[in-house]
Amino acid sequence: MQSRLKKFLLFLSDHRCDAYLVTKDVNVSYLTGTPLSEGWLFVSPKKTFYLTDARYAREAQKALRGIPVCLTTGKRSAFDVLHDLTRRLRAKRIGIDPRHCSLALYRKLKKSAPGGRVRFISRPGLVERLRVIKTPDELKRIRRAIALNQRAFGYLRRVIKPGMTEKEAFFRLEAYVRRLGAGFSFDPIIASGPNGAFPHARITDRRMRSAESVLVDMGIDVEGYKSDLTRMFFLGKIPALIREMTEIVRDSKNRAIEKIRPGIFARDIDQQARNYLDKKGLGRFFSHALGHGVGLEIHEAPKISRQSAVVLEPGMVFTVEPAVYLPGRFGIRLEDMVLVTKRGHEVLSG
Amino acid sequence: MQSRLKKFLLFLSDHRCDAYLVTKDVNVSYLTGTPLSEGWLFVSPKKTFYLTDARYAREAQKALRGIPVCLTTGKRSAFDVLHDLTRRLRAKRIGIDPRHCSLALYRKLKKSAPGGRVRFISRPGLVERLRVIKTPDELKRIRRAIALNQRAFGYLRRVIKPGMTEKEAFFRLEAYVRRLGAGFSFDPIIASGPNGAFPHARITDRRMRSAESVLVDMGIDVEGYKSDLTRMFFLGKIPALIREMTEIVRDSKNRAIEKIRPGIFARDIDQQARNYLDKKGLGRFFSHALGHGVGLEIHEAPKISRQSAVVLEPGMVFTVEPAVYLPGRFGIRLEDMVLVTKRGHEVLSG
Repeated sequence: MQSRLKKFLLFLSDHRCDAYLVTKDVNVSYLTGTPLSEGWLFVSPKKTFYLTDARYAREAQKALRGIPVCLTTGKRSAFDVLHDLTRRLRAKRIGIDPRHCSLALYRKLKKSAPGGRVRFISRPGLVERLRVIKTPDELKRIRRAIALNQRAFGYLRRVIKPGMTEKEAFFRLEAYVRRLGAGFSFDPIIASGPNGAFPHARITDRRMRSAESVLVDMGIDVEGYKSDLTRMFFLGKIPALIREMTEIVRDSKNRAIEKIRPGIFARDIDQQARNYLDKKGLGRFFSHALGHGVGLEIHEAPKISRQSAVVLEPGMVFTVEPAVYLPGRFGIRLEDMVLVTKRGHEVLSG
Repeated sequence: MQSRLKKFLLFLSDHRCDAYLVTKDVNVSYLTGTPLSEGWLFVSPKKTFYLTDARYAREAQKALRGIPVCLTTGKRSAFDVLHDLTRRLRAKRIGIDPRHCSLALYRKLKKSAPGGRVRFISRPGLVERLRVIKTPDELKRIRRAIALNQRAFGYLRRVIKPGMTEKEAFFRLEAYVRRLGAGFSFDPIIASGPNGAFPHARITDRRMRSAESVLVDMGIDVEGYKSDLTRMFFLGKIPALIREMTEIVRDSKNRAIEKIRPGIFARDIDQQARNYLDKKGLGRFFSHALGHGVGLEIHEAPKISRQSAVVLEPGMVFTVEPAVYLPGRFGIRLEDMVLVTKRGHEVLSG
């Protein structure tokens, strides 16, 4: 995984930093290729260090190769360690991501570097810029998560029936996922009938009824990499309106996916889906962005929204999830995961 | 739950703020008495508002009584809404918690209030100061979480046996917790033999052996309130050394608990446990703080550490968890939850 660190160091000099303090666990894990928590990675062209406390130090030492672990304690805080490192490495301009650094932490960092010798400089999204392009190794894990996700949907389709509560369906689903040896990447949504009209519904004790739609949004985690898919389940004979809406949402999704290829703006993909829903008079019932990147986090770059100025590149993986929410009645969302390829795209959850 | 908001407003005027922007979900949930996510609570003596986007707005409207929900959109951002609110309510000094506000967010807040009309002022820990004293209602939920936790330990004690992997034990435990209709409050730790020497071990495929100790650290969530307990499981005949260490850790825990009463420094409780381990020559194998508060979060105030200047008050709930970690061999940790009462303490997990 040292290649990730090397790439990151190239970024650093482009951004006029002598070093970078990575404060977000998932970014530390990405750069080191090791799942780590509750520590900071101090990256510099001269040397890279990992700072953590006694609860995690031994695990980190075992897992990290070629990166020394600096132990922080009550007596010798992370700020003290950092102070020594910047001095030793003569680092003066330390990049930080202001989105992953609290105001309180920033103030402590500044205070720990008195006299203006060291400056902490906002450099947002540097690690995320690497993370947004998935390597073959990362894609393999995402594909496995998606494959297990599809199997779980298949299982749920076999067992779900009217009379069952949402919670019961969830317990069955969870037990199945466990039998696969897997885990969820987030708390699933199982939203029946009118509950489906809440984009982020919580699972309730509501009994599912015949002639209803059930929205199921779930994800699987494989070695840190996630899937995120939504399918609609129909119990018994489905009213014409629900069927019709579902077809419109599906068409909207397919029209958006068709457009995906390198060089296009993410906002144009969102617009494509939204325009179609608008044309059908349903645009105002689609209340969120079309999609989001998926990888080590369930929501990560790139954002696929009306405002998103991101230009698509090969290796990006994101969801496409148009929806129609009819308050008090039902909600329809269909969510696939798509990979941007060199020439176009691949629907990973096809 | 409006009484919590009222108490909070009293704090506000003490801290010379016209209003407060609560940016942390769990603090919003606490003040409103409603589980909410991805929104801000703008609290002022004149009126309180909740800001969220279309994904959560309808749920919030349904759940919140007497608190208007302001919808934020791509066109009218949370900053725009906030700008209008401060103007309407003539709020000039807005308190924020710098630990729950990223540097990026802080800069956007400042930018959204040009001309210095509105100032955002650091007021850390105001909501936490309320949360640290548990009400009878909160205690009821914590007690229920602990009762379910104890039942889960009882179940595990019946089924755990040599030859089983840690992961298998976890699956059994999880299925049992589900049958109780409950959920975990964090990913449990099941650490057998030498794995127990990692304070935050991950569950592995290691097979548990006879004459080994297994450290199990788990918690249950009841309506947002958590438990957090650690028990040791012994498989077969236990070597004298493990038994002896366990007794020392237990004595250390009991000595610390004995001291708990209102008016005493938290650090003195930590010291009590640590001194005893030191006396037995084991202090250097106890590498973390003695305990932490538990409530809506699994780690919250008060911290029970060597440095903690917190003075104990009736209604505080925290863990007491001394430990001895022998690298490469085994680890012993015993963790109880204790309530500070008017006259002394109550071991909630007794």
